[in-house]
Amino acid sequence: MSKTPKLTLVGAGPGDPELITVKGVKALAKADVVLYDALVDTELLEYAPNALHVPVGKRAGKATSLSQDTINNLIVQYAQEMGHVVRLKGGDPFVFGRGCEERTYAEKHGVEVEVVIGISSVMLPGYFGIPLTCRGVNQSFTVVTATTSEGKLSDEVLRAAEFSPATLFFMGLGKLDLIAEAYSAFGRDDLPVAIISKGSHADGDVIKGRVKDIAALAHERKPEAPALLVFGEGAARANNNQQVNEWWEIAKNEVA
Amino acid sequence: MSKTPKLTLVGAGPGDPELITVKGVKALAKADVVLYDALVDTELLEYAPNALHVPVGKRAGKATSLSQDTINNLIVQYAQEMGHVVRLKGGDPFVFGRGCEERTYAEKHGVEVEVVIGISSVMLPGYFGIPLTCRGVNQSFTVVTATTSEGKLSDEVLRAAEFSPATLFFMGLGKLDLIAEAYSAFGRDDLPVAIISKGSHADGDVIKGRVKDIAALAHERKPEAPALLVFGEGAARANNNQQVNEWWEIAKNEVA
Repeated sequence: MSKTPKLTLVGAGPGDPELITVKGVKALAKADVVLYDALVDTELLEYAPNALHVPVGKRAGKATSLSQDTINNLIVQYAQEMGHVVRLKGGDPFVFGRGCEERTYAEKHGVEVEVVIGISSVMLPGYFGIPLTCRGVNQSFTVVTATTSEGKLSDEVLRAAEFSPATLFFMGLGKLDLIAEAYSAFGRDDLPVAIISKGSHADGDVIKGRVKDIAALAHERKPEAPALLVFGEGAARANNNQQVNEWWEIAKNEVA
Repeated sequence: MSKTPKLTLVGAGPGDPELITVKGVKALAKADVVLYDALVDTELLEYAPNALHVPVGKRAGKATSLSQDTINNLIVQYAQEMGHVVRLKGGDPFVFGRGCEERTYAEKHGVEVEVVIGISSVMLPGYFGIPLTCRGVNQSFTVVTATTSEGKLSDEVLRAAEFSPATLFFMGLGKLDLIAEAYSAFGRDDLPVAIISKGSHADGDVIKGRVKDIAALAHERKPEAPALLVFGEGAARANNNQQVNEWWEIAKNEVA
């Protein structure tokens, strides 16, 4: 008797394998097949010892990678033939994760879909001690992907550069010079910037600077992709205690 | 021999107790004291069976709640007297979570601080099937808290109403009428809106509408706080399959 085709989209978190959720671990234990991204720590596959493990992500240093069309088809085919497919994705499936497309395609083909949300790279600044919001500093932040514009900056990047107190740029490393120029054009040369390289993986790293010098620092230190760019006051914080007193002076005035 | 004072800020996730991370569970197992918010599911305290459990959050229906000053002091005092304090917070500590202040205060008083990031309510739309981003639909989103403005909408709300393709408003339920009016003023009457009430708790609920009718729907159905407001195309999606074909038509054109 064949099993009911099912897809569970699971967010594996931003790299550190302990940042998967308890719910994600339970989904893995019930998988017949796990289709996993290259950014996912393979240690997580141990939660699905009896499942078939299929890598579908882009691999650094290899020319070939699967297209999204192929991944969509694999999900449906494995679900129809083997039952419960867990699609293990880096970060969260629904934040620049193509989970929207995978879910849509699977449902269109009669596959039941469940979602286990995960820690997106949006939360990653906190991992390195950078607060996304802090009372008395900022009350909003913006998340922008820089991949759509081909060399030219999109209006959304310009709007963030002009107005947003704190912005996270996904896939912006290759456009860092242009993004910094835009901030500079709006007179924000001294705004702190952090480049978070390789997420919460063991070799993850943070480069800290300001709008005026971050491009030069990146050219010198050559951070590796994937990288998240943080433009905002919190980026000055990161993991050191130098600014604790200064920050406390700001924060304490706002403490209820 | 007294233990080294230590604070671990742990994000418990948006309600569903299975959305805590494996790392958060491990931190709880090593706690001497757990200071927990009212929004945190007390089932999670079972991961810390030998620790002292201290509720510090605002409780619905009770007039008294602890001030942030008091919570900051409790953290330091418990750490100095009992050792390892786990501060278990709803969502993520660093997204409108006051984690920034608690960390700053503890470090200022010589307490070593570690952070275990969690799933913020920013990820919550995905829990209800609402994609924050979808290729071909939007490439950015904004997160805004509506608590600072006293009746009057802040510039950040107005900017989102004018420009942002998708915006999450925290603590905006009491200002829903004003926020919807702002969107309407910018000609976005038909933009989908979702009100996510009580997070991923068992009694969590979603009300779906559009800018032009969401205020009336809320007056009728009276969603309970805390609530997250989602203004964006993805809000039309939520958990039903009606729009799958329509969405697929949009998404497939963008599939690589």
